[in-house]
Amino acid sequence: MTDTTMSYTDLTARVSQIFQRAGLAPLQSDAVARTIAAGERDACKSHGIYRIDGCLRTMKAGKVALDAVPELMPEDGAIVRVAAHGGFSNAAFEMGAPVLAKRAKELGMAALVINDCTHFAALWPEIEALTAHGLAAMAMCPSYSSVAPAGGTEALMGTNPFAFGWPREDTDPYVFDFATSVAARGEIELHRRAGTPLPEGWAMDASGAPTTDPAAALDGAMLPFGGHKGSAIATMIELLGGVMIGDLTSPEALKRLGSFSLLPGHGELILAFDPARFAAGREGDPMARAETLFGAILGQGARLPSQRRFAARKAAMADGITLTAEEIARLDRLYEGGMDAAV
Amino acid sequence: MTDTTMSYTDLTARVSQIFQRAGLAPLQSDAVARTIAAGERDACKSHGIYRIDGCLRTMKAGKVALDAVPELMPEDGAIVRVAAHGGFSNAAFEMGAPVLAKRAKELGMAALVINDCTHFAALWPEIEALTAHGLAAMAMCPSYSSVAPAGGTEALMGTNPFAFGWPREDTDPYVFDFATSVAARGEIELHRRAGTPLPEGWAMDASGAPTTDPAAALDGAMLPFGGHKGSAIATMIELLGGVMIGDLTSPEALKRLGSFSLLPGHGELILAFDPARFAAGREGDPMARAETLFGAILGQGARLPSQRRFAARKAAMADGITLTAEEIARLDRLYEGGMDAAV
Repeated sequence: MTDTTMSYTDLTARVSQIFQRAGLAPLQSDAVARTIAAGERDACKSHGIYRIDGCLRTMKAGKVALDAVPELMPEDGAIVRVAAHGGFSNAAFEMGAPVLAKRAKELGMAALVINDCTHFAALWPEIEALTAHGLAAMAMCPSYSSVAPAGGTEALMGTNPFAFGWPREDTDPYVFDFATSVAARGEIELHRRAGTPLPEGWAMDASGAPTTDPAAALDGAMLPFGGHKGSAIATMIELLGGVMIGDLTSPEALKRLGSFSLLPGHGELILAFDPARFAAGREGDPMARAETLFGAILGQGARLPSQRRFAARKAAMADGITLTAEEIARLDRLYEGGMDAAV
Repeated sequence: MTDTTMSYTDLTARVSQIFQRAGLAPLQSDAVARTIAAGERDACKSHGIYRIDGCLRTMKAGKVALDAVPELMPEDGAIVRVAAHGGFSNAAFEMGAPVLAKRAKELGMAALVINDCTHFAALWPEIEALTAHGLAAMAMCPSYSSVAPAGGTEALMGTNPFAFGWPREDTDPYVFDFATSVAARGEIELHRRAGTPLPEGWAMDASGAPTTDPAAALDGAMLPFGGHKGSAIATMIELLGGVMIGDLTSPEALKRLGSFSLLPGHGELILAFDPARFAAGREGDPMARAETLFGAILGQGARLPSQRRFAARKAAMADGITLTAEEIARLDRLYEGGMDAAV
C-alpha cells in the first residue's frame, strides 16, 4: 500500500465526481470540491476529504437541495444578498464574492449575506478570495448548539467560526480563522476517532462537569475560548450571523436538523472593507504600514496565523497533494457507493 | 469623613468644571465629563474619576488640543469620518454618532472613523449611544504597545478594546466591551496602587518571563486573552482601527507619546448595522429572536455581559452616585490645582 500524489486540480475533480455521482449538480459539487481540496492542499485535514462523509450524509437525509442555483438578490444599500436556496454555502459565496468586492470598493465597505445554505466549510477560503481583491474581510456564522456560554452548563451556541483577512502585496495574506470554542468540533471528532483524550479545559459532559472524554464531550458541551470574552464573541456571531441576517441561530439549526451527524443549515455574514478608501487622504500607505506591523510580530519570534497552512500549500502546489492508500480507498468507496457509502 | 452622594448630572458638571478650569474648552470637557461620570454611575471605577489625572497630565504635556472642534468630513460612501483635530475622542464621537446612525439606516450598515484623537474612554458608552438608535454596533481601537503577541516576548499591540452591542426593546441593550489583553492596563495599575499581586497568566516582565508583580508587568508586557485567538483579534484591531483608517497603531502611538503615563493619541473605528434592514423579507422579528437567545443564556444561570454595570446604574440613577471623602477631596484638589495637580 503506497501513498498517491496528485495535483490540486485533480483532487478537486475527483471530489467533485464523488458528489456528482451521488446526485449533486455540477455547480454545487465543483464549489464544494474546491473547498475540500483546498483543505487537503493546505494540510488542514479537519476541513479536507474527512468532510465528504458529512456532506453525503446530509444529502442522503434530504437536507440539501441537490440542484440549487444560488440567486443574487436585488441591490440593497451596502448589503449584497445571495439566497442559497438550500444548496451548499460554497456556490453561493462564489456567486456573491465578486459583487461584494465591487460594492465594497464603491462604498468603502459592504456586507455579503448568504441565506439558507448548508455549511461545512472553513471560512479562510472565502477570506482569501476577498483579500485577493485588495480588501480586508471579516466572516462569521453560527453552527449548531455545542458550546455552553461562560458560566452556563448546557450547549447553546455553536462553535461559531470567526475569520479575518488583510491583503498583502507579493505574499500570502494575513488570515486567521478560528472556532470561538476552545477547539473545533471537528478536532474533538478526530480525537474520538483516534481514541485519544481531550486536553483539559475543552469540554464538559452532559451533567456540566469537566471531561477529557471526546464522546462525553460530544454528548455534553464544549467551552468557549477565552472565558467570558470568547463567550461574548460567540454570542455576537449568533446575533449578527444568525438573528440579524434573518437566518437560523445555532439552537434553531440543531432543532431543525435533529442530529450532529448532519451538516447544519443556516446563513453567513461576510464584511469587506477597502483599506485604500478608508486610508484615503491620510498619511502613509496602509499596505506598507501593515508590513511594519507584521515585521514586528515576526521579528520577536511570534508567528502570523496561517503560516503553516501557506507553507503546506506551497509544497502541495509544487509537489502535489499526497493521500494515503487508505484515504484513496475511501475516496474510491465513496465514489462507488454514493450517498449510501458515507459513514 | 463621610461619603458624599450626588446625581449623575451633578458629577458630570463637577468633572467638567475641573477640566474647564484647567483650560479645556466646554465642548470637549462636557463630553469627557459625561463619559467619566458614566463610569462612576455604572460602578466601572477603572474608567471613572480615576481617569481625570491621566487626562490632565496629557493636557499638561501639550498632547491634547484644548479648544479642538471636531469636524465632520464630507460624505464618502458608507464611511462617516470625523477629524478630532487633536481633541478627545468623546466630542468627536458625539458629533459623528447621529450621522453614523442615519447612514447605517440608509445603507444597512456604515462605519464611523474618528481620526487624530486622544483616547481614554471605555467603548460601551459609544456602543450604547448606537443601540439607542435600534442599531447593532461594533467598536475597536488600538492603544499603545503593552501586549506581546502570542508566542512573542515584547510588548507590541495595545490592550485594544473590542466592544459590541445589540439593541433590546424595553430593557438595557446587550453590550460587551473588553480589552483583548487578559486584563486591562487600568486593572494592572489599580493592583499596583493597591500593592496586590496580579493573578498568574496576566503578564511577563521585561525579560519575557511570567510575573505577578504589577510594576514588573507595567515595565514588561501583558498577555493577550485566549492565547493565539485573542492575539489575532488584537492584531485585527491594529489593522482595522489603526492602519486601515490611516491612524496610529499601538507601537506608533507609544513612540509618538514616549510615555505610558500619558493618554494615547490614535483613531477609532465604529461599525453600525441596522438589524431591521438586514432581516427585511426574512422570517421572524430579529428583536424577538434575540430575546429567545438571551433567555436561553440566562435560563441556564449564565450572565449577560454588562448586567452588573446596568444594575449599578439603576441604583445610581435612583439613589445617586456615592463617592468617598477621599475621592471628593481629590476632586477638590484637582479643581484647585488644575493640570499641575494631577499625579
